[in-house]
Amino acid sequence: MTGAERDLRAFKFERILNQDTGRKTLNLLGTIDGKPAIITAEKTAFNAARAPLFVSPSDGLQSLTLLQKNDIYHWFLASIQQSTDDGDAAAKVNLIYPCTDVHIKKYSAQQIHMVVETPEVYQQYVTKYIEGKVAGGRLNWVYNILEHREESEKIVFEDGDKLMGFILLPDLKWDLVTLTALYLSAIVHRTDIRSIRDLTPDHIPFLRSIRSKILTAASERYSLAADQLKIYVHYQPSYYHFHLHVVHVSHDMGASATVGKAILLDEIIQTLEVMRLVGEKEMGYRDLEITYLLGEEHDLWRKIFEPLKEGRAPSI
Amino acid sequence: MTGAERDLRAFKFERILNQDTGRKTLNLLGTIDGKPAIITAEKTAFNAARAPLFVSPSDGLQSLTLLQKNDIYHWFLASIQQSTDDGDAAAKVNLIYPCTDVHIKKYSAQQIHMVVETPEVYQQYVTKYIEGKVAGGRLNWVYNILEHREESEKIVFEDGDKLMGFILLPDLKWDLVTLTALYLSAIVHRTDIRSIRDLTPDHIPFLRSIRSKILTAASERYSLAADQLKIYVHYQPSYYHFHLHVVHVSHDMGASATVGKAILLDEIIQTLEVMRLVGEKEMGYRDLEITYLLGEEHDLWRKIFEPLKEGRAPSI
Repeated sequence: MTGAERDLRAFKFERILNQDTGRKTLNLLGTIDGKPAIITAEKTAFNAARAPLFVSPSDGLQSLTLLQKNDIYHWFLASIQQSTDDGDAAAKVNLIYPCTDVHIKKYSAQQIHMVVETPEVYQQYVTKYIEGKVAGGRLNWVYNILEHREESEKIVFEDGDKLMGFILLPDLKWDLVTLTALYLSAIVHRTDIRSIRDLTPDHIPFLRSIRSKILTAASERYSLAADQLKIYVHYQPSYYHFHLHVVHVSHDMGASATVGKAILLDEIIQTLEVMRLVGEKEMGYRDLEITYLLGEEHDLWRKIFEPLKEGRAPSI
Repeated sequence: MTGAERDLRAFKFERILNQDTGRKTLNLLGTIDGKPAIITAEKTAFNAARAPLFVSPSDGLQSLTLLQKNDIYHWFLASIQQSTDDGDAAAKVNLIYPCTDVHIKKYSAQQIHMVVETPEVYQQYVTKYIEGKVAGGRLNWVYNILEHREESEKIVFEDGDKLMGFILLPDLKWDLVTLTALYLSAIVHRTDIRSIRDLTPDHIPFLRSIRSKILTAASERYSLAADQLKIYVHYQPSYYHFHLHVVHVSHDMGASATVGKAILLDEIIQTLEVMRLVGEKEMGYRDLEITYLLGEEHDLWRKIFEPLKEGRAPSI
């Protein structure tokens, strides 16, 4: 038994920091000899080379338990022949020991809540929050891009028009190489749209125009068909200057493209088109209930939605 | 050994249809008694309840192999104590047998396109496609559930009302153990809604009613807060009897919850509310352009959207 293994076996469990049931990972916090330690574990992927042996009791599936059968559909739980020697181990296990608070934060999950933001809550509280997020030069980094003071060498395409224009450039999340992981940001030049909440039917021509320009520019630049790209916005966005996410359709964006966070540009345009048909008054996204995912670490949760959930007054 | 297990053991491997190393899934095509069969396998998530025993050689990690060590970082491969009885199985294994070409397409890796389905394309072509999908007993497995002929023991909650009612039961993607991976389906009793295309403002009371009943039933049954659940539908759905997906907010559902495939129930209700304000005529989702992701193997791509893209007449 190696010293490293002895350390791992001496791990005293404290709590689960995070778990991803989609990707089958688990992060644990504990101590070894009284010093903090983190174990991160990930189930291994299936070994494709052994696929031909998959149903073999000796080389593949061992015990099988039938859970359910309906017509042609059957589902089982199974155990699998595994040995850590031939790459068929059950899991990859990492130990960080001794670890720091920085490690602990990095590997911790935050609780997520589904919140319903009514027009009233938006007007009364969220607008105040947004004012704080755009004050004191917090958007200077965006203006630096728009005015070519920063990152101008990264610009993929620009329409310089102050009203209809935008800048298209790679997002930091993209490695710039893997085409199926393509991730661009389109930042508009106009500064009067903080988020989708500011959109009204009057913006339809603007949105249709940037939609077609983004698709043309990105598909030409990267030799893609336009229907290989999806364009969406976030609500809440990470910063309050209107921008769009342009992503390859084959890229599993996980949280970034999930409902409750992302809204397709086309869907926004359609909703605005319906609003335009509503004669009596000028309608906009400000008039909708918007339901979205919010982490407990987010100020909007702490200052607005948690108090409201607990019947307290928001502290903003 | 059950008949189902005998079938699975008799599976003759042909080829790998798809593999996702991030989510640890594997789809295999083969034959059983000469008839085509699909095995879809997914490694199980870690059982959080057993986290305190994670490093125990008897109840958790068995053999350990140290791959590398660098300062405070250590990498191991491990095998894990597992039994299919206590929810610690290595994998969920689904068998579809005998399967059709549609199943094979559904579980194969494929090129994806973003398509815009106009009201005209829906009326002229997609409705014909849907008619084919509901004919010839293709929805029998759904009616088996609704009429308690199958899976009745799995029902989490039922409102038996033929108009407002629905059945809530676990989706086969859920391992039934990991709460943060909770995945339920709500299948409505009424048979007059094929997809969101059939929804109009008249359905708002129905949708609000099932929304609140689903949230109450699921949160009580699994001791969750209602804001720990997200409810969405798919367009296109995998079958044309109206159903909803009920998922834990912390579960990264990947493609299932991504924009261009999933639409939040709350968002649908809001859109219908705006439509209700449109006086002049009865509006519904049938009147919208709907943009969504479509795989090349999907009949809607081959028969409708690919021909349209190439300026040919759809062959449906």
